[in-house]
Parts: sequence; structure tokens; C-alpha cells
Amino acid sequence: FKSKLPNLATSIFTEMSLLANQYDAINLSQGFPEFDTPEFLKDSISNEVRSGNNQYSPSNGMPDLLKQIEALIYRRYDTTLNGLESISVTSGATEALFVAIQTIVNNGDEVIVFDPAYDSYEPAVSLAGGKCIHIPLVSPEYKINWNDVENAITASTKAIIINTPHNPTGTLLSENDLIVLSELAHKHNFYVISDEVYEFITFDGQQHESALKYPELFKRTFVISSFGKTFHCTGWKLGYCIAPKPLADEFRKIHQYVTFSSFTPAQLAVANMLETHPEHINELGAFYQKKRNLLLNALSHSRFKTFISKGTYFILLDYSDISDLSDKDFCHWLTKEVGVAAIPLSPFYEGDYDEKIIRLCFAKNDETLLKAASILCKL
Amino acid sequence: FKSKLPNLATSIFTEMSLLANQYDAINLSQGFPEFDTPEFLKDSISNEVRSGNNQYSPSNGMPDLLKQIEALIYRRYDTTLNGLESISVTSGATEALFVAIQTIVNNGDEVIVFDPAYDSYEPAVSLAGGKCIHIPLVSPEYKINWNDVENAITASTKAIIINTPHNPTGTLLSENDLIVLSELAHKHNFYVISDEVYEFITFDGQQHESALKYPELFKRTFVISSFGKTFHCTGWKLGYCIAPKPLADEFRKIHQYVTFSSFTPAQLAVANMLETHPEHINELGAFYQKKRNLLLNALSHSRFKTFISKGTYFILLDYSDISDLSDKDFCHWLTKEVGVAAIPLSPFYEGDYDEKIIRLCFAKNDETLLKAASILCKL
Ligand SMILES: CSCCC(=O)C(=O)O
Ligand SMILES: CSCCC(=O)C(=O)O
Repeated sequence: FKSKLPNLATSIFTEMSLLANQYDAINLSQGFPEFDTPEFLKDSISNEVRSGNNQYSPSNGMPDLLKQIEALIYRRYDTTLNGLESISVTSGATEALFVAIQTIVNNGDEVIVFDPAYDSYEPAVSLAGGKCIHIPLVSPEYKINWNDVENAITASTKAIIINTPHNPTGTLLSENDLIVLSELAHKHNFYVISDEVYEFITFDGQQHESALKYPELFKRTFVISSFGKTFHCTGWKLGYCIAPKPLADEFRKIHQYVTFSSFTPAQLAVANMLETHPEHINELGAFYQKKRNLLLNALSHSRFKTFISKGTYFILLDYSDISDLSDKDFCHWLTKEVGVAAIPLSPFYEGDYDEKIIRLCFAKNDETLLKAASILCKL
Repeated sequence: FKSKLPNLATSIFTEMSLLANQYDAINLSQGFPEFDTPEFLKDSISNEVRSGNNQYSPSNGMPDLLKQIEALIYRRYDTTLNGLESISVTSGATEALFVAIQTIVNNGDEVIVFDPAYDSYEPAVSLAGGKCIHIPLVSPEYKINWNDVENAITASTKAIIINTPHNPTGTLLSENDLIVLSELAHKHNFYVISDEVYEFITFDGQQHESALKYPELFKRTFVISSFGKTFHCTGWKLGYCIAPKPLADEFRKIHQYVTFSSFTPAQLAVANMLETHPEHINELGAFYQKKRNLLLNALSHSRFKTFISKGTYFILLDYSDISDLSDKDFCHWLTKEVGVAAIPLSPFYEGDYDEKIIRLCFAKNDETLLKAASILCKL
């Protein structure tokens, strides 16, 4: 029996969350909120279940949800969609990423990804018969060097995957990044997959630059997002993909045979939430900015060097003044001996990686963040 | 832009349900219950949501649900699993089928399917780089001719997909079928994907023959099922796959990158239901048998020839005494002009198909079935 993903085992998120539970450590590893989804959403989903909305949704999503997603896009961006047919609801952003990759990647195609890269990109590309070309983001600011990109482009380049706000580094792509990308994509005729699942979590007044804002870029782009991050309900597994019609048509065809459709009551509840509670989204950046600041402040007297996260609910810490362990060993030690679980960065890199940097998730209650910080300050 | 599924459009289920809504026809096309999921399940899922169980499930499923699935298997079959590691929860049986196929099918592999075949098998095999070899079931009883199968086996045969109870024909595989399959699979060293989503819906005292009952067969089999059919909640998209450990390990690896995990509160609610309400499952066959009989009786004076369904919530009708239209045209006419939506069989066949047979779903309220039958009796 020949494995198609011979180099992969259990995902690092599964591994670290299990270890955190096993050692009763404060779990700042896998990215999920410690607090609950809004009461309104809980009431709404219960009402939908009780009203009997428990059968198949249309494969592409409940029309009410598609309309709310469309309205949200038009409130934010001066863009043109092909109506609701540009939008497809998926079982989490993971499915949307997988299907978008299946849609365009054929045997022998190359897909450019930036390291550190979210861990699902590479296996999804491999399963489609493609190959990831890894370009490291440039430390310490984790910016894209577009010359490196241009040099990596070949006749086989089928797509680039970008991710902004960026997991795990908390960086944002700039207007200039998207303009350069748009030009390259046209010049070399490749597609773009834009992973924007943290689209509503940006800090310090900085704007999220969506591929949707750039019509020339959007023509060849799958924009992927998720409600789990936005509405504190990662276990609801509700994502979506926005693409120009020819790409969306093919995406929908494949999505039919991957999951067919997603949990109906959650789609209706999120549609209600989007319609009646726009303030939740508007306040999300400020909500998480406070948490970031709280954690950064509390760690300011530690021996960790902190990076300033500009978006997402993650920050990076450099532990080189504390330990010589590899990042994986350090995370295991931290979980087992110190009582705080974090994510090492090496699983997000191709090949060897020897920087001493870990990722913490700050989507936690203030007391949890303060408790973790006080433990970390003792190191 | 080159489509990877050039011959496929919107699934026939989507097409016919849309048409039924558009023409306000009685929708006996796409398979979903008209009645609601049990009150207990609705209460339970609401409680789980309200208790704050809204974050990621472990990728392979909530331990409570895995335990209940294991207990259910041991209550029914004298089999041996590798503990909970044999069981993986998926976002519907569609995802389980897709992932099982991705797990074993490589470029150039052949997969034997029986026509009429459920519409997701072929695209999933194509996306994995494989090719479906279609063997027609033998009319009018829709049995497998195992000589045809043996003749179709080549060095490239990687798997066979079986489906019992069978959608759309309502037939069941026999003990002998599974024994012959087991021998062939060993002799020719291929895998088996056993789609058993209607496992609890069999009639007239006939037993469902699961691949789980045959240890030699199960060694190389993915058994796939779904709670949507069993608990009248097709919109909850909760399925599962049971496989021996080496296959399950690889299945889980791929599942991580397809959807990662499924809706958490539904997993907990179904676990509660399985634990506290075993009678639901025990009564399901009798529940649907009454509906089948009601519909068959009501159609006995029509000009349709009826087939006797032995399982699933579908029956086939032969309309050759009523119309010369192709089955697709007949279904469109029936929906638009007569007011009853059905599913044509040709989309489940490779190549040309000219029999005059359609499928009705009888997972509907008795009044709905009687009303549809009285309309159909007028033809
Ligand atoms: C799907 S589990 C991973 C959650 C996450 O996105 C992260 O921790 O980065
Ligand atoms: C996933 S929609 C199809 C439902 C179904 O299984 C059927 O109608 O056969």
C-alpha cells in the first residue's frame, strides 16, 4: 500500500492540542477561541433546527447566506461579481482551499507558496498531482520578495497561493503587493488562491487588502474565507469561496462531489447574523487588538522577543535567549514541563528550519492570556 | 481553462429539485425526508450549541461519537476493529466516498462500478486520476453478474465500489455476493469501497449484508455510511468511514486536508441519540416499509409497472405503457405538466440508456405519497 502523502503525519494542530490536553497545559497552540460564539447565533441556529430546516442545502449554499455574503462584499469593496453564482459555501475554508486547488491544478503543475505556509496547501496540491514551489518570506518582517517570485515562475506555474492576514506570522500584504501580483499573474498567466480567513482581524487601523478590491487580479482569483474565525465558531466548519464565474462554475462542479453541501441550520443562522448584527464584524479588529496588546504587554518583561502581529489571532515569539532546543522540542517541553502549549514554525516550512520561533494564539480570555504570560515570564 | 470534469454539469438531484420548486411540483426526486429529525436530536443539538461546544472537533471525530459508532458495530456484527482508530467521522458520506477514493486511486488505476451507479463515484475517481469501468446490473432484478466482474478485472483494477441497500434500485446484496466479492478481491488484490448509507432501511425481514460481517473482506474495505438517512437530517452532513487500520490511517491523513473536521454540535447530539434511543434505528425499516407499501398499493391501479424495493427509500417505476419520451424528458414533463418530480435513471449509467424507468423517493408524509400516487394514477 503506497501512501500518497508519505511525508505527512497527523497535523501539528492535532498533535499539539492532544498534548495540551494530556498535560493539562494552557492551550495557545491550535487556533480557536476560548470564548463562545455570540448568543444571537446560538439562538438563531437552535431556532433553525427547531423550525425543521434540517435537510440538504443547495450544493452551493443557502440562497439567504449567498445574498448576505454578496451584500457584505458590496459594502466593503468596489467590485463586480457575477451575482450569487460567484459565491459558493463550503464545509470550512479547508474544503474551499482543497476544491479551489483541485479545480485548477493538474499533473505536473507548479504552485508557488510562501513559507511559513499553512499546512493544508501542500497536501492539497500533491493530491491534485501538482508540486509546491516554496519561497520563504523575508525575515524579520516576513515580506514577500517579488524578485524571488518572478525568478521562481516557470512554464509550469499554474497558481500562487497568498494568505493575508497571514497565519502564522500576523503580517498583512500591502496594496503594492497585490498590484505587483496582479501584473505577474497577467504576464505569466497563472491563477491566484487568496486565503483571507482572518479578513476581519486587522489591527492599528491597517486595512485588509483583499484580492476582491483589484478587478484585474480578481479575474483569475479564488478568494477564500471562513465564518469560524469571524464568529468564534471554528467547530461549525462554514467557509466560502468567491471567484469569477468560469472559475466558480468549475469550483462548484467539484464541490458537488467532495461534500455536496454544508450544515443547513448554520448557514441560515450566519445569514441572520450578517443581516441583523453588522456591528460584530466592525468591532472584531478592536476586540482582538486589545487581546494582542494585553499579551504583548504582559510578555514585555519576559526573555522572549515578540513580533508585532498586524492581523490574525496569532503572534510569534523568538525564544533564542531562553533555549537551544529545536522549535518542536521546545514546544513539547513548554507543554509538558511549563504548562503552555504553542505551535512550532518548522512544520510550515519546506526542508530544514532552525529558527527559534513559536506561535501563540491569543483568541483566549484575558485571564488565560495573563496566566500564560506570567508563566512564560518566569523562563 | 480546461475542465477536469468536462462531461459533468449540475448534479441531477440539484437539477430536479430546482425544477420541482420552480413548478411547485410534489418533489419525489432528490432523496431527503419530508418529515423532521427526531425531537430528541433537535433538543440535543441545541443543548450542545448552548453549552458552548462550538469549536473544532478532533479531525477524526468527537470521541463520544466514535465510541457510539463502535458500540453500534459490535451490537450488530461479530467483527474486530482496531479500536476507535478504525472509525473516522466525515462531512457526509459524500466526503467519506471522496476521501476513500483519493486514498487508494492513483493515475491510471481502474475502479469497477455497477450501473446504475451513484453519481459521485465517477467524478471522484476521475479527480484521483483513475478510470471507472462500468458493469451494468442485470435487469429486471438488478443483480451483479460476477462473471462479468471477473472478466472486467485487469492488472490495473484498484477497487470495486459496491452499494447495498442500492440507490437507485432498492436491491440488496446477498451473503453469496459478499463471499464471491471477498474471494475475487483476495485473488486479484484490489480494495473495496462499500457504500452502506441505507444500512438501516431494509424490508420484509431481509438483512443488510455489511462488508463488516465478513472479516476477510473487511481487511481490504472502506465501509461508508451516513447519519442523514438514519436520523432524517440529510442537511446535517454527517457521515463516517470504517476501515482496517492501515487504510484508516491513510484515510485520516487525507481527510485532514479535505475538510479537517465536521460540525461539532451535531456529532455530540448524534452520540447522545445513539446512546439513549437505540429504538429509532431498530424501528426504521418498519417505518419505511409502511411507506413503501402505501405507495405501491396506491400505484397498483396506475399504468406504471412497479419494482419491489427491498431497501433504501426509493422505488423504481417503468413508464413504458405511458410514454415514449426518454427518461429525462419524461421527468421534465412529469414535473412541469403533471406536478410530480422524479429522477431519471440515465444519469446513473455510462453511455446511452434507453429504458423507460424513473426513481421515486418515498421518504415523504403519507398524504404526500397518496396525493402523488393519485396524480400518477391518472396518467
Ligand atoms: C483546522 S485546525 C488549525 C487551526 C488553525 O487554522 C491554526 O491553528 O492555524
Ligand atoms: C446529495 S443530494 C442526493 C441525495 C441522494 O442521495 C439521492 O437522491 O440519491
